[in-house]
Amino acid sequence: MSMLSLPHDPSLMQRALDQARAAMWRTSPNPRVGCVIASADGTVLGEGGTQQAGGPHAEIMALRDAAAHGRSVRGATAYVTLEPCAHHGRTGPCCDALVAAGIARVVASMEDPNPLVAGQGFARLQAAGVRVEVGLGAEAARELNLGFLSRMVRKRPWVRLKAALSAEGSTALANGQSQWITGDAARADGHAWRARACAVLTGVGTVLSDDPLLDVRAVQTPRQPHLVVLDSRLRTPPQARLWAVERQRWIYAAAVDDNGRRAALEARGAQIRALPDGQGRVDLPSLLQDLAQRGVNELHIEAGAELNGAWLAADLVDELLLYVAPRIVGPGRPLALWGPLTRLDQARDFEWQSCEQIGRDLRLVARRTGPVAF
Amino acid sequence: MSMLSLPHDPSLMQRALDQARAAMWRTSPNPRVGCVIASADGTVLGEGGTQQAGGPHAEIMALRDAAAHGRSVRGATAYVTLEPCAHHGRTGPCCDALVAAGIARVVASMEDPNPLVAGQGFARLQAAGVRVEVGLGAEAARELNLGFLSRMVRKRPWVRLKAALSAEGSTALANGQSQWITGDAARADGHAWRARACAVLTGVGTVLSDDPLLDVRAVQTPRQPHLVVLDSRLRTPPQARLWAVERQRWIYAAAVDDNGRRAALEARGAQIRALPDGQGRVDLPSLLQDLAQRGVNELHIEAGAELNGAWLAADLVDELLLYVAPRIVGPGRPLALWGPLTRLDQARDFEWQSCEQIGRDLRLVARRTGPVAF
Repeated sequence: MSMLSLPHDPSLMQRALDQARAAMWRTSPNPRVGCVIASADGTVLGEGGTQQAGGPHAEIMALRDAAAHGRSVRGATAYVTLEPCAHHGRTGPCCDALVAAGIARVVASMEDPNPLVAGQGFARLQAAGVRVEVGLGAEAARELNLGFLSRMVRKRPWVRLKAALSAEGSTALANGQSQWITGDAARADGHAWRARACAVLTGVGTVLSDDPLLDVRAVQTPRQPHLVVLDSRLRTPPQARLWAVERQRWIYAAAVDDNGRRAALEARGAQIRALPDGQGRVDLPSLLQDLAQRGVNELHIEAGAELNGAWLAADLVDELLLYVAPRIVGPGRPLALWGPLTRLDQARDFEWQSCEQIGRDLRLVARRTGPVAF
Repeated sequence: MSMLSLPHDPSLMQRALDQARAAMWRTSPNPRVGCVIASADGTVLGEGGTQQAGGPHAEIMALRDAAAHGRSVRGATAYVTLEPCAHHGRTGPCCDALVAAGIARVVASMEDPNPLVAGQGFARLQAAGVRVEVGLGAEAARELNLGFLSRMVRKRPWVRLKAALSAEGSTALANGQSQWITGDAARADGHAWRARACAVLTGVGTVLSDDPLLDVRAVQTPRQPHLVVLDSRLRTPPQARLWAVERQRWIYAAAVDDNGRRAALEARGAQIRALPDGQGRVDLPSLLQDLAQRGVNELHIEAGAELNGAWLAADLVDELLLYVAPRIVGPGRPLALWGPLTRLDQARDFEWQSCEQIGRDLRLVARRTGPVAF
């Protein structure tokens, strides 16, 4: 395996990354991957991105695209944003398909940390005489699959905490009114971020006070993220609106001792697990492990101040997604009940990633820094 | 007076605007003005910006610059970002100097709303046979002198409220610790914004708790902004650090009945005025009128939650200048004690103007919208 020794065309990898981006909302729990197959002179012969779970991977889509156009890929180069898979999952190994099609060279952005792949895809290609180069577009490819990488490497999801705030940080008035501090465009944008998540998580407090749907409505999506409700004592009403949406519906409790409520919730499609922390609450690290085992790459939290505070206190938040309205409403409900801290060095430090105007609001994204950063 | 009928060179007005920007920290209480004198073929003959109060205006500086280089400006065009003055202030009228030098044409960004000018500069130029065109660069020129325009048109300063916050809006921990939520670069940037203000305002509460200097230290400035302390009952300690800085030092009180404290503060250079609101506090609208009469164009507020809340409640804040750190500290001291509101339509609505990364923090600027917008 060599590091980009042969001439290669970065624009073709950019095109493969675009294919991966186009797959953003559909591939969960699989990674978002794009593939472009090009001849030696740079002509694109076929391209594609990963389909929904159980469907073809990017390499197969690109091979099919070339075939559909009657183009031979013998001797061609495949630009792919992640190492081609070497294992039989719900689909056959992509590296075998590339070899069978006569691909001469594979330029990949990065190795797949999935222990079922982890270099074996590259090895298998090389054993078949395919030249392999790794690293082109690595940063963008990693960015596209932070959640998948987190699940593979850390055995827990990438945790994103979303909130909508006034300019001075109130999520709602003191009386609870919060519809709407931010505007329509920010709410639609928030749905687009839900759409990319594998699961949306909230707490029973939010269910009881807001009765939210917590689904993706404002944008068209090929799949709904799963739903996670933290509900230590099974207080979620079986008639809550969020049970009506077709998706995996998971309740995590601290104890499951009320068979009547349990049965009523199960009748609404909820799957209930107890993960007690020994203090009457759900153990958050165990919850993340469990969600990873359930295939959750990106976890999207939309919760109230108490649960947000618990996530921050446990230092399990990787990313903040904040919509900030250009309005002052006076002190209201806070983003997170946590502390009180007595020294600033006890704070959770992040790093601003981006700031975009979304309608009349700002969207701020920040990532955790320091020893716990992923 | 015509609206840009002759050929003109926008890049020359840009250069005049750059001269005005370079004057940002020095001209108070005068407007920031730039002037570029160019020949018919666009050659720059002279340029300059307004000097400190009492010094020459931009037009005079540009004429002197041309003369210093031995260049005749007879028949030339003067690009100037504000109507040349027609009155004898501490300097002679600029329009007379332009006429005397033989300037044939004046391209100005906007009329000067100062009642002492207000079109009379243009009229005087035209009466002397100078061709006058108005409007080129008007938006940028207005932006440079929002404070001056506010003082001339509204008879009150442009009010900017500055604060440094955690990502969730805490200005300090609950125990008061706030040094430093934001980083060095944000503090230096904050000093640059202080430097452009005519006066920096705080409340006695901040003086008592933080003993700040509230001067411009982190950037080189040709002048210190004046200091305004709101101190209803003259509680400011005469030994507070902020008295040590050379500048106009104004205390506004609700009552001035303690001659001992008054004398001690006056000995420290403070000028004290009572502007009671009838409820034991300083009347904020009257305060702004008084500051306008004292020549304050831009008022920079750095205060605590209580005084910030009073400004917002009175709806007298034109602009928010917020430094937002990428950290979560839990609920602490709020930006503004105001309310509690019971409906979101009681909020103060602003409009985001900009978002910039300053060191590790963000600098957000927002302006008031709606009927009170200036």
